Amino acid sequence: MYDRVKGFRDFYPEEMAARRWAMDTIEDVATRYGFREIGTPALEPTQMYTDKSGEEIVEELYSFEDKGGRSVALTPELTPTVARMFVEKQQALSKPVKWVSTRPFWRYEQVQQGRFREFYQTNVDIFGSSDPAADAEVLAVAVDMLTDLGLTSEDFQIRVSHRDILAGLLDSFDAEVDTREAIRAVDKRSKVDHEAYLDALVEAGLSYGQADSFDEMLQSGEDELDSLADITGSEAVAEATQNLRAVLDATEDFGVRDHLTLSLTTARGLDYYTGVVFECFDSTGEVSRSVFGGGRYDDLIEGFGGQPTPAVGFAPGHATLQLLCQRAGVWPEEGLSTDYYVLQVGETRATAARITRDLREKGHVVETDIADRSFGAQMGYADEINAETVVIVGEQDLENDEVTLKEMDEGEQISVPVDAFPGNHDRPTFEDFAE
Amino acid sequence: MYDRVKGFRDFYPEEMAARRWAMDTIEDVATRYGFREIGTPALEPTQMYTDKSGEEIVEELYSFEDKGGRSVALTPELTPTVARMFVEKQQALSKPVKWVSTRPFWRYEQVQQGRFREFYQTNVDIFGSSDPAADAEVLAVAVDMLTDLGLTSEDFQIRVSHRDILAGLLDSFDAEVDTREAIRAVDKRSKVDHEAYLDALVEAGLSYGQADSFDEMLQSGEDELDSLADITGSEAVAEATQNLRAVLDATEDFGVRDHLTLSLTTARGLDYYTGVVFECFDSTGEVSRSVFGGGRYDDLIEGFGGQPTPAVGFAPGHATLQLLCQRAGVWPEEGLSTDYYVLQVGETRATAARITRDLREKGHVVETDIADRSFGAQMGYADEINAETVVIVGEQDLENDEVTLKEMDEGEQISVPVDAFPGNHDRPTFEDFAE
Repeated sequence: MYDRVKGFRDFYPEEMAARRWAMDTIEDVATRYGFREIGTPALEPTQMYTDKSGEEIVEELYSFEDKGGRSVALTPELTPTVARMFVEKQQALSKPVKWVSTRPFWRYEQVQQGRFREFYQTNVDIFGSSDPAADAEVLAVAVDMLTDLGLTSEDFQIRVSHRDILAGLLDSFDAEVDTREAIRAVDKRSKVDHEAYLDALVEAGLSYGQADSFDEMLQSGEDELDSLADITGSEAVAEATQNLRAVLDATEDFGVRDHLTLSLTTARGLDYYTGVVFECFDSTGEVSRSVFGGGRYDDLIEGFGGQPTPAVGFAPGHATLQLLCQRAGVWPEEGLSTDYYVLQVGETRATAARITRDLREKGHVVETDIADRSFGAQMGYADEINAETVVIVGEQDLENDEVTLKEMDEGEQISVPVDAFPGNHDRPTFEDFAE
Repeated sequence: MYDRVKGFRDFYPEEMAARRWAMDTIEDVATRYGFREIGTPALEPTQMYTDKSGEEIVEELYSFEDKGGRSVALTPELTPTVARMFVEKQQALSKPVKWVSTRPFWRYEQVQQGRFREFYQTNVDIFGSSDPAADAEVLAVAVDMLTDLGLTSEDFQIRVSHRDILAGLLDSFDAEVDTREAIRAVDKRSKVDHEAYLDALVEAGLSYGQADSFDEMLQSGEDELDSLADITGSEAVAEATQNLRAVLDATEDFGVRDHLTLSLTTARGLDYYTGVVFECFDSTGEVSRSVFGGGRYDDLIEGFGGQPTPAVGFAPGHATLQLLCQRAGVWPEEGLSTDYYVLQVGETRATAARITRDLREKGHVVETDIADRSFGAQMGYADEINAETVVIVGEQDLENDEVTLKEMDEGEQISVPVDAFPGNHDRPTFEDFAE
């Protein structure tokens, strides 16, 4: 007996069916928006991550030296990979480029509820448009994914912010502020007590008074947003505010505005964001972490050696999405589903196989006996796999050129002519033959 | 600029679309047969592979020590993982267990045509039935996958053999034969010259005369199969022959017999096979390697600490499958496909967005302008993404409450009332409005 590696999971069919439903649902949304699937490698050069995030990132990576002496890492996220791929074919690609993919990633971190060392994400990115409509489209995809999962505005809320507003406000103070550090402090705001948060802002260069006043500005609601530029007299804040307004206006056209809330205290931890940023939260607060987030990252492609290229994207993680769906009661029952079980009694395999094949050709999920089992054992199995209809192919019935359809939910059954089954029926059930 | 790791591949949308079609096609077949998707980890304990295959396997593995001091390996194949998963829940699982999954695997080996260090396979396995119908179902799934891809018996052939026939024939000689080594020699038969092949059989314990006579028996056609037991007087050969006949008879009922050929020179290299084994070949011989193979492995679960459990399965690799499809001319054109592009001229975003949303709700792939571009730039992009229909939403047309449908293939166009579009039409095109 072997144990699986800590932080890694096996998914048996019942749970996997529910996860597949969720993956298909969110991928279908991206597909309808014209995002195109890409396939990406599990390993990348370790340097791709250390160049961006410093040597300390190695502590969180599954990195090692391969047999050819290369330092490689199991990909902890997709953004560097898509940036590398975009740069490699930048000239040839039709812009805007809209990519989507779902796959596992790996990080060596503390295992806790909803957090594993192997985790699944769907990455959605647009390269090549700085227009507010691109930010809005990404927000619309995010909202449509959640509503297609069955979630409503009672269940989730997307908080939208803008990095340049935060940076502009910080710049407007008469102080030497480390903007990145201050933004990281804002990102941690809800996770630490207020004193510690203010301390972190002071650490970043503000005075306590400035930190207080900065935090007050971050509380601005939508009505007060436009006044921030006036109060600070900052051109940068004015421009960023205008950009954020344009994005929100476009989401109105795109039909998703109601799910979005302005929240300047939303900052996103990662350094590479440059414009609109957003995070999805459980409205009830039961799933305490942000469910996922995203935003604009206009500098990254140039940082990877490409031509300057605007970019915006997000990446929902499937584990927290599952927690949200479960909390909201929209996660499907984790079970098998089977359209037909074709039961064989006696030497009836030839006919049973013909029926099985015909039903499969109509696209149904069909099982039949492959273990030479008794009537009772087959019926028990049909029940375990949640077969909706059992087609009983018995020697005696066949002598009368009949088979029996048994509807498993109510237990009703009926004899039908074997030649007429399945015949022209798309999905023949007890009802089709009972008059 | 970073280079991707050697032997690893990026898949851009055009190629990925073709690969996704192939993956969906073969997974759909397995689903209709009632195989259930499982999800499996990328890392396993290295020991899981070295226990089975010896320390030398490490040379082919991406194995390393993780930050917790565990020796782990990127999974080079799925069979040990499914065995581990089966053993862990053996009591609770309804038998037969039928599992399927598609994912990448990793081996540090020489990169060549159709062989990479990261490669994709779909694994199909049945646990818990020793009945010939289980072997036959696996063969039927394999054939249906290939025919659903558009391949015919002109394109491929599945060669079926039986490990116990080979072992029984070897046992029937008056010699001390290392059966595993002899079977490995048979597996390499077509890859080395005849002298080297005979030498390998002699190395395994046969005399040259016995090796010749053994090889002659392996050439038996279907008519001669039953005579092998008589010639050798071997009970084991008689039983195995009967089992193989029963499997082939079941494939007749399952409608796939025509695609199968008896071929005792087919042996499969892996030690763990115990009964029926098979390999798929390109009928034209252009794809020189076996496309994929599989068979029965009744001892593996016990070897993993479980209750003795019969098992049978196979795992087509997507790279060789792609080569076969390309050779046969059934690989789809690698390109994007888009149902609608909704083109905006002037300040028409609100209407364009409404139409875009309605079309997406009907399930179509729809793109619209998210980069504030000119008519010409949008038309060029619509062409690049192979949009079938362009819906032109122009300011002037809107004044007449109209939009224009342009069918991109022939270039025909027509004005339609904006309120009626898309209306009740499932997939409105030029034809629906042209009288």
